[in-house]
This record gives sequence, structure tokens and C-alpha cells, in this order.
Amino acid sequence: MKTEVIVVKTQTIAAISTAMSDSGIGIVRMSGGKAFMIADRIYEGKNGKKLAAQKSHTIHYGYIKDGEETIDEVLVMLMRGPHSYTGEDTVEVNCHGGVYLVRRVLELMIKNGARPAEPGEFTKRAFLNGRLDLSQAEAVGDLIASQNEYALKSSVSQLKGNVKSKINDIRNKIIYHTAFIETALDDPEHISVDGYGEELRSAVNELLLEINKLLSTCDNGRIIKEGIKTVIVGRPNAGKSSLLNVLVGEERAIVTEVAGTTRDILEEHINLQGISLNIIDTAGIRETDDIVEKIGVDKAKMYADEADLILYVIDASAPLDENDRQILKMIYGKPAIILLNKTDLDMIITKEKIKDVYNASNPANNNISKSKEIQVIEVSAKNQNGIADFEEAVKNMFFEGNLSFNDEIYITNVRHKAALQDAGGSLQKVIDSIDMGMPEDFYSIDLLDAYKSLGDITGDTMGEDLINEIFSKFCMGK
Amino acid sequence: MKTEVIVVKTQTIAAISTAMSDSGIGIVRMSGGKAFMIADRIYEGKNGKKLAAQKSHTIHYGYIKDGEETIDEVLVMLMRGPHSYTGEDTVEVNCHGGVYLVRRVLELMIKNGARPAEPGEFTKRAFLNGRLDLSQAEAVGDLIASQNEYALKSSVSQLKGNVKSKINDIRNKIIYHTAFIETALDDPEHISVDGYGEELRSAVNELLLEINKLLSTCDNGRIIKEGIKTVIVGRPNAGKSSLLNVLVGEERAIVTEVAGTTRDILEEHINLQGISLNIIDTAGIRETDDIVEKIGVDKAKMYADEADLILYVIDASAPLDENDRQILKMIYGKPAIILLNKTDLDMIITKEKIKDVYNASNPANNNISKSKEIQVIEVSAKNQNGIADFEEAVKNMFFEGNLSFNDEIYITNVRHKAALQDAGGSLQKVIDSIDMGMPEDFYSIDLLDAYKSLGDITGDTMGEDLINEIFSKFCMGK
Repeated sequence: MKTEVIVVKTQTIAAISTAMSDSGIGIVRMSGGKAFMIADRIYEGKNGKKLAAQKSHTIHYGYIKDGEETIDEVLVMLMRGPHSYTGEDTVEVNCHGGVYLVRRVLELMIKNGARPAEPGEFTKRAFLNGRLDLSQAEAVGDLIASQNEYALKSSVSQLKGNVKSKINDIRNKIIYHTAFIETALDDPEHISVDGYGEELRSAVNELLLEINKLLSTCDNGRIIKEGIKTVIVGRPNAGKSSLLNVLVGEERAIVTEVAGTTRDILEEHINLQGISLNIIDTAGIRETDDIVEKIGVDKAKMYADEADLILYVIDASAPLDENDRQILKMIYGKPAIILLNKTDLDMIITKEKIKDVYNASNPANNNISKSKEIQVIEVSAKNQNGIADFEEAVKNMFFEGNLSFNDEIYITNVRHKAALQDAGGSLQKVIDSIDMGMPEDFYSIDLLDAYKSLGDITGDTMGEDLINEIFSKFCMGK
Repeated sequence: MKTEVIVVKTQTIAAISTAMSDSGIGIVRMSGGKAFMIADRIYEGKNGKKLAAQKSHTIHYGYIKDGEETIDEVLVMLMRGPHSYTGEDTVEVNCHGGVYLVRRVLELMIKNGARPAEPGEFTKRAFLNGRLDLSQAEAVGDLIASQNEYALKSSVSQLKGNVKSKINDIRNKIIYHTAFIETALDDPEHISVDGYGEELRSAVNELLLEINKLLSTCDNGRIIKEGIKTVIVGRPNAGKSSLLNVLVGEERAIVTEVAGTTRDILEEHINLQGISLNIIDTAGIRETDDIVEKIGVDKAKMYADEADLILYVIDASAPLDENDRQILKMIYGKPAIILLNKTDLDMIITKEKIKDVYNASNPANNNISKSKEIQVIEVSAKNQNGIADFEEAVKNMFFEGNLSFNDEIYITNVRHKAALQDAGGSLQKVIDSIDMGMPEDFYSIDLLDAYKSLGDITGDTMGEDLINEIFSKFCMGK
């Protein structure tokens, strides 16, 4: 079976790497030992020179031919292994970007000896050939999928190897201690483990701190990657729709409506200074429905528990009613921002009034600190006032105002989170064993488990099936 | 104003040249005198070398940076003018293909001095810089849009300059005669035009033959480019839908339904051995409607005159009725193929029977040669029999069975057709002037008109407005 795996690895693969709709340029990519040979079978250069005789990282102009028939006028990019994305000899044919045309070029490569690549197979080869670790390979997928500035920054940072370095750093420390224990146990005459438990406890505690610090970035990591799950509540006439329209209009990126988990729910994506708000919108939100209680409270109740952020829109020109009081009570202590809308009209209620009602609604059994004050922001959808304040408030709420990406690591991948949790659990067991005065060989078992769990992040200790599954989520041609 | 035009030309332009959906690779392209300089502002190579110092047609690995912030890990392709697509210095940034990401890279180029390219502007510059003539530039658009083998072959042939060469050849002959006449008229003492009319008549007749030969390819040219406009008629139970499904299933290319000119009409595109059949389908075609006459005859009447091909489906297991007779009469002499379907059942009617009824339906005032026999092909949608025969029949009908593209020129562009017709008209006027014994300077006016009309095809004599209009039809980034 081993032999077969090696054969598969060295097959030359080909795929269309650009999106499949008519465009200026389409790229068909080949990687593997025969890439240059296959390219020479279908390429005719202006000067008759063979691609196999050309230098790496050069560009060549000519025609793709199927026998006598010319398929396209192209530029061919040559990159020889190991200095290529996959680490193998790579040929990229840069053709005119018609869908039919790029398909013809791909078919021709396959006819001449390449086999169609599976989704993610180029990146998988980069991983198998040691060009990227698994966390970097996953960053490639995240990078392509990123919809906002911070998602982009975070995945570029991961692609540059920041996660890898951090994890490897922790693993090296773990393996150092494991090696010490094993060596000491093998050679008790020369190496003593007396008092080593205390030293190890302190070292492991430090590692646990590092892991917990990484784990503490997961929430923001998810928010960076997937956006802030936001729900808007408020009475129908409070101006939710117009406020939503203003927010959508504020940015020039794509606003799409995608079908959500149920038929009634739509999500609107808003890019807010580099963070995405995924606004959970229900069919009711844009209706003018008089059943006020139903719309306001029911919806808030339904989503408030799972939302990252509740936006509660209040009409400043109308008095608070029982419905508002109920909502204020319900959102108490939850991550919420109150938008006091219609401040362009005569304001009947004020920020202070709302805060008073909010604070008074503190349920007896709720022990959330009063210092976590609700933020009330005066806005006017009509005059588009207060939007900047709102954006600032969101940033403060989620990133304490200083979301920066100089070298911080954010854990954005749930697989990484799970591995970190496992590693943390194993390290905790080491501490427990020390506390209970267990023999030293118990320590090394748990240390090795932590080492292995962290290795899942970089792909060092990972089985083939899992690797295949990870890469199968990639898009074609990557 | 002239100065302004020159300034516009030398601005460095940038655009995303790949399709805008997430994919493995996205390309952002820049062209113009400052392309290398702008690239150096946003690129950081691994070795710190500047792109401006690098050789043409080389590939460089590094990062795109916005100040300190890394945007993406990229390959940068350098092509120095005049050896580039546009003829200008060109930089192509090959980045990870996320939509947000490629937009960021484009924005960064614009922030650093490039301006967004208009659709088709790269190709327009290639034309303005003499890298392509207009017929070749138009071929680029056709190539990207081509949906089948022959459309691809035809546009590649045009891109390689076959139309250009042919047109330039005819123009050179015209200008030779014009120059002779003008010189002779300027210098009558040394050059005599006695008897020149006869010589010119024979030369112009030859040119007219060439132009008419080109014009004769227009019908097939249009069919190659746009597909065969096909209408299917027949009684509802004759099996039109199942036959259509079989044809669609026969090929593995995309079958799309696009909204047609009216709300009721859809077109289905079928790739048939490299030619597209655009099957005009009406809402009724898939309905099981008992108003037989209405569906069969009305539709046939409506579309038969403008269709390139009428497919008439007859149920072999049922006797011909009055409706069939009416349709047979109506399609007499028109480009039609009869598909005798359900040959898997007991056949009540035969090919011969149908041909007899068809021939008998020859209207008295119809003088179409009887030798142009109607083709009746036995098929079975159920068993998928006879499809190959049908494909063969279509090819025979439109290309006499030998559609080849070794060096034939097909005129696929309506603009070219109109220019050829104008040129032909002018040349005919030359012949008329000779016949009427008009003075020689009349000849040269019409010769120059023909010369000018043909120049419209290659873009030699074309106004700026028209050129702008032609390139505005291109896709972005080309």
C-alpha cells in the first residue's frame, strides 16, 4: 500500500485554478514530475524552443495546440520544484478566460498525461512536500474565503507561519521535558529526577498560560473569520429598516442576502471598519406589523441567547412603552447596544432615561456587575448621524478598541481550538499527577499526549484520512 | 484635445482580470509606463530586490504590502513593453483568488497611482499600440465567449491574423490601382490610361469574387459563432421533450436556459459535435396540450421563416393526421430535418410514406428543386438510437459535411459583413463607371471608398468613437 501512495504523489495533476465564468484571463495549472514534458506536448513557442530547456520562473509566449489545431494564444509560466507552490515542477498556462476554452486546455493536458486534480490537491502537495504546515495550508482556504479586512489579516498572519511558530515553540518545550524524564528514567544512576516535579509544574503552568491565552483569542477569532452574529430588535416603527439601509450603504463592499437556516431567516452582511456584522433578519423585521409585543420580545428572546450582539432600536420621538421595558429587561447583561433613533425629531426620551430603565430592570438573581454599563448611542437614520459612534462602540465591545494585527495570533479555526483544548487537558493532568505524587513516567505520557494534540494543528502527527478530509474542503485548482 | 488623448493613453491602468468569484488564483493586472514603479511600491520580494531592476518575462515571489500590513503572498509576472499583450510595461499579480482579496490588491494599485481600467482597455491599448489589428482584437472577445469547438477555431484563426491578412491583401491590390490612376492623371505625358479600363475591370472583378467568397461564409460564420437557430415542432405526444433530453444528455457541456426575447420563449443550447444548436423552446413545447393544430402549425409558422433549422418530430407509432400534413406542407423547401421518433414501438408509418406526403405537398407556385430531398431520420428517444445519424445530417446540411479550419476564413462578425458589403458595392460602382465610359478619376473615388470600407475591418480608417464603442463590449480586465 505504501508504494501506491508514493505513485499517487508523483502523478502530474492539472486543474483550472481561476473561477469558471468568462473573463479576461483563465489559468490552467499543472504540477508534478511530468508537468514540463506534458506542457511541451501541447505548447508551441514562437522560437520553437522547448519549455523543458527553459529556466525556472520565466514566462513564455506561444500557442497551445492539439496536434495541428491551435487552441489558444497563451503565456506559459514555469516554476521548477522545489521553488514552486507545490514544491514540484509547476506549469501555469495563462489563457484567454473563456469557460469553454480553459476546459479545452485542461482536457488537452489530461489527454497528454496529466490527471485531474482533486479539490485542494495543489495545497495538499505543498503540505506533503513540506512547503507549508497544516495551519498554513488551512490559512490558504481562509484567505480565499475572507470577506473583510481582519479576516484577511488573520489568515495572512497564519499563512506566514505565526500559528505554526507559536505551536512549534510550545511543542519544543514539551518535548524537552519529556525527553529529560525519559532519559532520567533510563539512566537513574546519572540523572536524578528528585525535585523535578516542582520544576515541571512551574514549566507546565507557563505552557498552560500560553495555551489559555491562545484559547482566549478563539471568540474574537471566530468573529474575525465569520463575523459578529447580530440581531436587531425594536418596534416596527422604530426605524430598524432605515437604519439597516444606512449601515449597508455606509460601506461599498458587497451586501448579499443568503438563505439562512430556516425559510424565514435571511442574513445581511455588513462590513464595518473591517469587521463583518451578520445581521440576522427575520421575515418580520421589514414588515409593518402592529402586533408589537410579538415582534419585539419574541424575536429578541429567540436570538438573544445565541447572538454575539443585540442591536436594540428605540424611537426617540415616542415614549417608552411596556414592550420596550420588557425588551430592556430581557437584554439585561447581554452583549447589547441600544440605538436611540430618530434623534432628528423632537426627542421625548433621553439616553439617561433609557439607562435608568435598563438598570432598574436588573433581575434580582442577576449578579452581573453594574459597571458593565449598557451603551446607548444617539443616531438618526434619516440624517445618517451617529453611525461612526456606533462603529466605534462595536469595536470597543469586541476588541477593546485595539484590534491590531502586528503579530498577534488569533485562533480562527475550530479544529485548532479543539486541539488546544485537548493539549490543555493533558497538561492539566500532568499538574494533577505531580500534585498526587504519581511516578514520573505518568508525566511523560500526558506530556506526549499534549505534544500530539498540538501536532494536529501543524499536521505533524496527523493521519492520512484526516488530511484528505481537510483538503477536500478546498476549492478546485488550489 | 490631442494632447489630452496622449495623456490618457499613457496612464497606467489596473483591473482584476479573472472572474469574480472565490477561486484558487486571482490576477490583478497593470499596464502602462508606471506599472513597475507602482508594483514596487506595494511589493516586497524575499530578497529585497526591486521589480524595476528585473528582466522581462520573469516571475517573482513575495508579498503585497499596504505599508506595514501584508495583504497577500503572491507571484508577480513581469512583461516589459513592447513584448507584452498591451505593448506597454505590464505587471500581473497572481494572488490567492478570494474576491475580497483581489479587490484589496486592485485598490492598493489605484491608491499608489494606477487608475481603474475600462472594460476592454487592455486590448484597446494592444490595438492602439499596433500589437493587434481590430479584427484580431475582436477575435479576443469572441474567443472568450466561444461555447463550442468551431467558434473557438474560428476566433483563434481570426486572432492569428487570418482575416487581417486577407483584408490587407485585397486593400493592397485596390491601392495599387488607385495609385496608378492618380499618378497617370497627374502625369499624362508619361503614363497613359488608354485601355486601362479593361485591365481594371478584370482586376476589380477578381476582387469582387474574393469579397463575395468572404461574404458567402457569413451565414456559416454566424452559425459557428452564435449557433444554429433551431425550432422543434410536432404533436405533443410525438416525444419532443424526451428527444430534447436525449440530445442535451448526449453532450457533457453546459446546458443553460436563458431568457429570450419574449417572456414565453426559452432557448436551450446543445453542443452537437462542435456546433451549437440553439433550440427555441416555447412555453408550450413541454406542455401536454390537446389543441394539436395550434401548437404544431402556429409555432412552425411563427419560427420557420427565421429559423436556420426546423426539427419536425413525428410519432412513428401513430398514423399521420391532418395536422402533420399541414406542417409538412408548411416546411416544404425550408431547412428542415424530420425525426421519425418512437421507432422502438411498432412502426405504423415509414420514411418513404413521409417523403411521399412531403413531396406531394409541393405548392404549385414553389419552384424549389425536387432534388433537395427532405431528410427523414429514424430515431428512438427511448433507446437513444439514431442520434449519431441526426448529428451527421445537421453537419451535412450546414457545412456539406466538411467543416474544417485549416486556413479557411469565416466571417463571423456582423460589422465585418457590413464593411465587406460596402466595399463590394463600391467596387461594383467602379465596374459600372467603366461600362458607362466615365472618366478615370471616377474610378479612383470608388476604389478609395472600397479601400476605406475594408479598413474598417482592420481598424485602419476608423474613428475614435467607433473604436471606443467596440472595446466597451469587452469584459473587465481584458
